[in-house]
Amino acid sequence: MNDNKEPISPPIRFPIGIIGGTGGMGRWFAAFFEKEGHTVRVSGKDTGPRPAEMAAACPVVVVSVPIGVTQEVIRQVGPHMKKDSLLMDLTSLKAGPVRAMLASSPSEVIGLHPLFGPSVPSLGGQNIAICPARGETWLPRVRGILEGRGAKLVETTPERHDEIMAVVQVLNHLDTIAMGLAIRRGGIDHETLEAFSTPLFRGKRDMIARVFSNMDLHAEIITANPHAAKMIGLYRDVVDAVGRVAAGGDAVALAALMRTDDGPDETG
Amino acid sequence: MNDNKEPISPPIRFPIGIIGGTGGMGRWFAAFFEKEGHTVRVSGKDTGPRPAEMAAACPVVVVSVPIGVTQEVIRQVGPHMKKDSLLMDLTSLKAGPVRAMLASSPSEVIGLHPLFGPSVPSLGGQNIAICPARGETWLPRVRGILEGRGAKLVETTPERHDEIMAVVQVLNHLDTIAMGLAIRRGGIDHETLEAFSTPLFRGKRDMIARVFSNMDLHAEIITANPHAAKMIGLYRDVVDAVGRVAAGGDAVALAALMRTDDGPDETG
Repeated sequence: MNDNKEPISPPIRFPIGIIGGTGGMGRWFAAFFEKEGHTVRVSGKDTGPRPAEMAAACPVVVVSVPIGVTQEVIRQVGPHMKKDSLLMDLTSLKAGPVRAMLASSPSEVIGLHPLFGPSVPSLGGQNIAICPARGETWLPRVRGILEGRGAKLVETTPERHDEIMAVVQVLNHLDTIAMGLAIRRGGIDHETLEAFSTPLFRGKRDMIARVFSNMDLHAEIITANPHAAKMIGLYRDVVDAVGRVAAGGDAVALAALMRTDDGPDETG
Repeated sequence: MNDNKEPISPPIRFPIGIIGGTGGMGRWFAAFFEKEGHTVRVSGKDTGPRPAEMAAACPVVVVSVPIGVTQEVIRQVGPHMKKDSLLMDLTSLKAGPVRAMLASSPSEVIGLHPLFGPSVPSLGGQNIAICPARGETWLPRVRGILEGRGAKLVETTPERHDEIMAVVQVLNHLDTIAMGLAIRRGGIDHETLEAFSTPLFRGKRDMIARVFSNMDLHAEIITANPHAAKMIGLYRDVVDAVGRVAAGGDAVALAALMRTDDGPDETG
């Protein structure tokens, strides 16, 4: 018999406001937080509570709007946040949004980048980049909620995050977009490509479909990254090098390029 | 009670010789044909029966050697084939090998391109391109064996096959190789990329690993395709166009390119 009078402390629950909660990721996290027992308030462009109301009602406000308007929305809500509350964003870039949150709000600040899209069924095994920027009260709670459901949190600075995303997202999406457009220009119809596809080609076409199903988001992820120009240049140089060697028709030389390519100096 | 005296005709079984039966695909098909009840004889570069012996012993001979030596091996075995036997190849290109089989052998001839690698567990759902080139006795038997295990056969001419493969393989591998080399040049270490990877990036890295795990094969598939130069040029043009628009930093323009790109005239 348990006669311990001390109550077991329940998990801390709190109202969470999601600005942009009608978009893919906003909706995903609204559903997630609700399932975790938190009260969630959601606003879209023309719906739900306005910034001041949201900040007054929710100790945690999450900005989940398109990259292009993230900083503007942060500047609208930031000044209304209380010192002991938390302002977070879910944008695919971190330097600009975190700077804007620090500048416009007196609250605690965390930049978050869930490294997955709204089609994943759960947090289990998914990566989330986290950039703690101000305050220590909310950080362990946020970590607890996300890691409690199996997310792998990786802590970094906003600047380093964007540098890594220049490879993980800018390069990757550029490459996928180029292949998508090249297939179109290749002039073989869809049914024929289906009938002749290999497992690798099927996989690539699935990726292309996912990137092209949300063109605005992926175009923003590429163009808004501060390292985009460098990565685009690097990618063009690589395609140039690979293309030149491949066009030479020498399989041994092409395999050698794959084996030994270490940078522009070796191959350019 | 079944008193029908006529015996149910058993499936036709015959000895099959696989030249290059020690490589990945050769081994895969050797195991497959054996499981189907056929006697399989296998030869490698310096092992097993020589071409004349193979042709004498097996009514069906399959050439499954690297692209670069396929036509040479075909010219060695072709003249020893009997008129009522079948010569096939499994090469990723079809125009050259089929021409070589027709020229060097009096036998029936079929070009086959299994559109998968030796890692698939079965034929179920896999595509196989088939180019019937001479004779009608063996074609239904080969079709029966492969389709009986769930393969989707798609019949075409050797020339059309190679044209389609310029997209399905040349473009696709070029794109994958470029991304692999660009990641290396990007300078972010493997562990960091793992920790920050998205599902799309993980998928791309799996593809890169598969293409780079067999560099010689993939380099040959690219360089030996008769349409390679055209496709490499097309790919470089696309990367140039995408890179130029992306470097402009205008997400709307990049999304518009993804939406409307129909060919070099519209974007170049």
